[in-house]
Amino acid sequence: MTRPETPHLDRVAGPADLRRMDDRTLAHVADDLRAEVISAVSETGGHLGSSLGVVELSVAIHAVFNTPVDKLIWDVGHQCYPHKILTGRRDRIRTLRQKDGLSGFTKRSESQFDPFGAAHSSTSISAALGFTVGRDMGRPTGDAIAVIGDGSISAGMAYEALNNAGHEGRRLFVILNDNEMSIAPPVGAMSSYLSRLYANEPLARMKSLAEGFEASLPYPMREGAKRARQLVTGAMQGSGTLFEELGFDYVGPIDGHDLDQLLPVLRAARARATGPVLIHVCTVKGKGFAAAEGSADRGHGVSKFDPVTGQQAKSKPNAPSYTSVFGEALTAEAARDSDIVAVTAAMPSGTGVNIMAKRFPARVFDVGIAEQHGVTFSAGMAASGLKPFCAIYSTFLQRGYDQVVHDVALQGLPVRFAIDRAGLVGADGATHAGAFDVAYLANLPGFTVMAAADEAELVHMVATAAAHDAGPIAFRYPRGSGTGVALPERGTVLEIGKGRVLREGSDVALLSFGAHLPEVNAAADLLEGDSLSVTVADARFAKPLDMDLIRRLSRNHKALITVEQGAQGGFGAMVLHALAAEGLLDRGLCIRTLTLPDRFIEQASPDEMYADAGLTRFDIADHVRRAMRIPGKIVSLPGRA
Amino acid sequence: MTRPETPHLDRVAGPADLRRMDDRTLAHVADDLRAEVISAVSETGGHLGSSLGVVELSVAIHAVFNTPVDKLIWDVGHQCYPHKILTGRRDRIRTLRQKDGLSGFTKRSESQFDPFGAAHSSTSISAALGFTVGRDMGRPTGDAIAVIGDGSISAGMAYEALNNAGHEGRRLFVILNDNEMSIAPPVGAMSSYLSRLYANEPLARMKSLAEGFEASLPYPMREGAKRARQLVTGAMQGSGTLFEELGFDYVGPIDGHDLDQLLPVLRAARARATGPVLIHVCTVKGKGFAAAEGSADRGHGVSKFDPVTGQQAKSKPNAPSYTSVFGEALTAEAARDSDIVAVTAAMPSGTGVNIMAKRFPARVFDVGIAEQHGVTFSAGMAASGLKPFCAIYSTFLQRGYDQVVHDVALQGLPVRFAIDRAGLVGADGATHAGAFDVAYLANLPGFTVMAAADEAELVHMVATAAAHDAGPIAFRYPRGSGTGVALPERGTVLEIGKGRVLREGSDVALLSFGAHLPEVNAAADLLEGDSLSVTVADARFAKPLDMDLIRRLSRNHKALITVEQGAQGGFGAMVLHALAAEGLLDRGLCIRTLTLPDRFIEQASPDEMYADAGLTRFDIADHVRRAMRIPGKIVSLPGRA
Repeated sequence: MTRPETPHLDRVAGPADLRRMDDRTLAHVADDLRAEVISAVSETGGHLGSSLGVVELSVAIHAVFNTPVDKLIWDVGHQCYPHKILTGRRDRIRTLRQKDGLSGFTKRSESQFDPFGAAHSSTSISAALGFTVGRDMGRPTGDAIAVIGDGSISAGMAYEALNNAGHEGRRLFVILNDNEMSIAPPVGAMSSYLSRLYANEPLARMKSLAEGFEASLPYPMREGAKRARQLVTGAMQGSGTLFEELGFDYVGPIDGHDLDQLLPVLRAARARATGPVLIHVCTVKGKGFAAAEGSADRGHGVSKFDPVTGQQAKSKPNAPSYTSVFGEALTAEAARDSDIVAVTAAMPSGTGVNIMAKRFPARVFDVGIAEQHGVTFSAGMAASGLKPFCAIYSTFLQRGYDQVVHDVALQGLPVRFAIDRAGLVGADGATHAGAFDVAYLANLPGFTVMAAADEAELVHMVATAAAHDAGPIAFRYPRGSGTGVALPERGTVLEIGKGRVLREGSDVALLSFGAHLPEVNAAADLLEGDSLSVTVADARFAKPLDMDLIRRLSRNHKALITVEQGAQGGFGAMVLHALAAEGLLDRGLCIRTLTLPDRFIEQASPDEMYADAGLTRFDIADHVRRAMRIPGKIVSLPGRA
Repeated sequence: MTRPETPHLDRVAGPADLRRMDDRTLAHVADDLRAEVISAVSETGGHLGSSLGVVELSVAIHAVFNTPVDKLIWDVGHQCYPHKILTGRRDRIRTLRQKDGLSGFTKRSESQFDPFGAAHSSTSISAALGFTVGRDMGRPTGDAIAVIGDGSISAGMAYEALNNAGHEGRRLFVILNDNEMSIAPPVGAMSSYLSRLYANEPLARMKSLAEGFEASLPYPMREGAKRARQLVTGAMQGSGTLFEELGFDYVGPIDGHDLDQLLPVLRAARARATGPVLIHVCTVKGKGFAAAEGSADRGHGVSKFDPVTGQQAKSKPNAPSYTSVFGEALTAEAARDSDIVAVTAAMPSGTGVNIMAKRFPARVFDVGIAEQHGVTFSAGMAASGLKPFCAIYSTFLQRGYDQVVHDVALQGLPVRFAIDRAGLVGADGATHAGAFDVAYLANLPGFTVMAAADEAELVHMVATAAAHDAGPIAFRYPRGSGTGVALPERGTVLEIGKGRVLREGSDVALLSFGAHLPEVNAAADLLEGDSLSVTVADARFAKPLDMDLIRRLSRNHKALITVEQGAQGGFGAMVLHALAAEGLLDRGLCIRTLTLPDRFIEQASPDEMYADAGLTRFDIADHVRRAMRIPGKIVSLPGRA
């Protein structure tokens, strides 16, 4: 594939080079950078739209601030590709999101220019405030700059940080990157508020900035610089913005694609600010690439594509995704029961509730990036008698954990948690892994916790959850395609706390919880090749446990192996606790609990990640062989040392 | 003790009675109610100040709204004593916070007038919005009214809910109870903002309310009613408040102790509102009781007291509290290392960091009720090279769980978590139990998790945490007094992952994790009375485990019993996982993992709660006897069936 000519960008080995360039050259660098981003992402796939939106902003910040002494913190971090290219990682930019390649997010271990990693939203202002305290206490760190999107700033965490930063009054830069989009168009009152600010005449509230600002402008001024002057030195109009009420100096909105506005405003802010400053920058997600600008999600996350036409590579036709199976099953249940409602936290299509929203728009609630509120809002609806499905990824539900404990579990309210992206998720890496949900849910009194072994099971679990009014219930399922099994016409309500046996044997029992079942079955095949007689069971429930099944498996086999796509403290731990309590370990049980290992697993394909985690069919079989003391049979694992 | 005469309150069996009274009688009821609250809390102790602040508001809301069809949701719920007295629980109000008595918070299982329980802050608006959706979808529920304090509204969760409620635009009432106090005086920019609103001329923004408002006023008008009219029908001044920017109609501030303001404003709001309304009510915490109004925390949480003098019953002189030992030890470490800083989320005295703040005020940060921000702010400080101690109760750290995972653990940042109120906490009941922290922390890669067996151990763990730069570290300790052991002059840095043996035996090993050690020791005494030879060990670490110790205990004893003050999935689960992985269960190990049971434990004294939980010395001894199959020795437990 032809790569773009990028003569100006080629002169940039790092941000220091930007600081030696004049403004006009910086504009050329930005143009080259945009071309490079499009070219690179066309090869790797990734978060294209967000990155294209901040090309000029990335150039401007690095040209004005003294990174890496100054700490630049990108919120979420999926807009960081231009930043990575500018900060010495251009040579690896075409390894984005691949095994052993660059992370798709900022990452401390990857570069000193990434002082604080991200992936979940709305953490940047808190982290930046931490660095400003470090600076003020004499640590060798300069200014801190948080760049946060309009979607992310609607999360409660960002508000907590603004509230505290306004109170602290320390010199701190928050750049609000307002593209009127998070992943989907954002919702919520804050979003409307920002739109109103944008629609108004530009405001300028940075008193300290205005003084002496003129001197920093280039002459002759071009249009953008004139607007920047107008902004910063203009008369105060109306009353304070919301940000000013919280203690920030506010300047904006300015055009985030116009370096003639960005550069002087950032320079003036850097030269003059004494306290916290919010700079409101308006950008276009997908800017400069027609195929992205024209798409509904502005090219948020794309596959590999043709850099000329924008045509994305189609993945092979395959089994339907778990997400779409969930969305369809939920919609079918909703059609039968008008009390069913659904909640998503800014992920209508990511979670599949958009399918229900098409048919029942008034019964699907997108609360924005607000998992805490989303969970308790669901609890309130459940208390009123509705049947809420709260659809949040495993990793993001962590953010509503206290609400799950305090508002749902303690009150025994029948909120249904649909937990997508359980287990390892691939290119998004460790930050998005759904590793801990079973561990943090199964020990909550009164909770029912299920995992789907395949997409047909998921349909049954949706039906089971819809029918379960006795208390909270959760079901987890992985990212990606199902196994291709036939889907039932209608989900069957499962008996709570009952697993199923798929294969009867007598030597060893493999007890699977969730979507690792195909790999467990394959391990059983390997072991049967060793002339072992293998039972394979699907627990379906981590809570309540199927104790009849577990007793039977533990008594009738020489070894019992549990397998799950989650961290220790989850399903295996519940089985061990129960066995210990019943005295079933007293006379000896060759039991192993296979979980994700006690380390974070880096990005790769899900299969590669599970191999890294030691959970392939070969690993499982070897665990059995070792447990049964037949090490002679242990295979040399393909691709592992 | 003489009880007050309360002739008007005596006529109120429930809110319906209030609705039949004229406004002047309601004022008399309020006076009686205040006297009754003071009298009751003088006998029970409890959250006096908050309850006294909302006496008139409680009367007004129940007089105007149609509870329990209308859903009244008190945020946090510690201001609910007047509400409980008005809603049919007067006969049990002197059992507040006691075993089998009324909860100190609102609670669904206690009354239909408590539609949504609380105890953690800032959940009320989310829950109320849930009820409004239920109402709009035809559930048999009326209006929803959330009453939230100025401290609670500074939490991110409340902002998320305001943001979503403003967007939804449904008819919903939020009453901001602004007493310029949460528990300590609140901090943060929002708090200053509210003070500015209060200092200004009263604003009124409720267009829909103004129309026809005059008709609802009593004639002749008294002063309060005149002000209410002024407020509601007054000219619009200046620009919108922050709440209006978020989509709410705003009215206020009004005097929350003046029924002549409260009643007409609430009536007008109820009659006219079409969307979300925020009513800003100013109250005085501790109102009407000089001893509370005059104290620094305005009588937030009091012991039993003399209702005339306000003199609180002194608890017996005892060992210092774990909280104060932590505060002193932290201050001593901070004196030695200027990089040590501390973070609290609105609990400076509750956590003991106020002790450090006295000596090093610039190094202690109260972020407000903002655990999410507090954790990531700590992570940012750690990334800058500082040594943050993030002091948050076990139950409240749940609210920063995602930040612990994503910002601290994933990045391996050395944040020190000081986790007070671990285990069962007494009168605050199940909502405040520190049950889950070991389960939610010990499975995070790279985390070190300790528990203090006594207050001397706590001093060592503070020193250990201060010295530990290799990654995140947490140490947990209970509410209340220490055991009375001598305190070391200076903490010793413990070897990471090493426990200690306190008593050597050969039959049974009791492996304790944390502050249950005295009870475990007592159980060992009982068992030695049975002629068993007992080892007692203190694990100190749930992670990394002391595998040498665990191997030794499991090999050299007939039974191994773990004991912890926490839920399943925690320390015992980590021990079981490790034993299974090493094959130490293969040939039989009589192991039991004693944890909190799989249900929520209701308020009582901590000792009563642990008895309820089945974790007394007698329970532990009986578990051992059953495990070792010597049931003949099982004692009939005192006080248990």
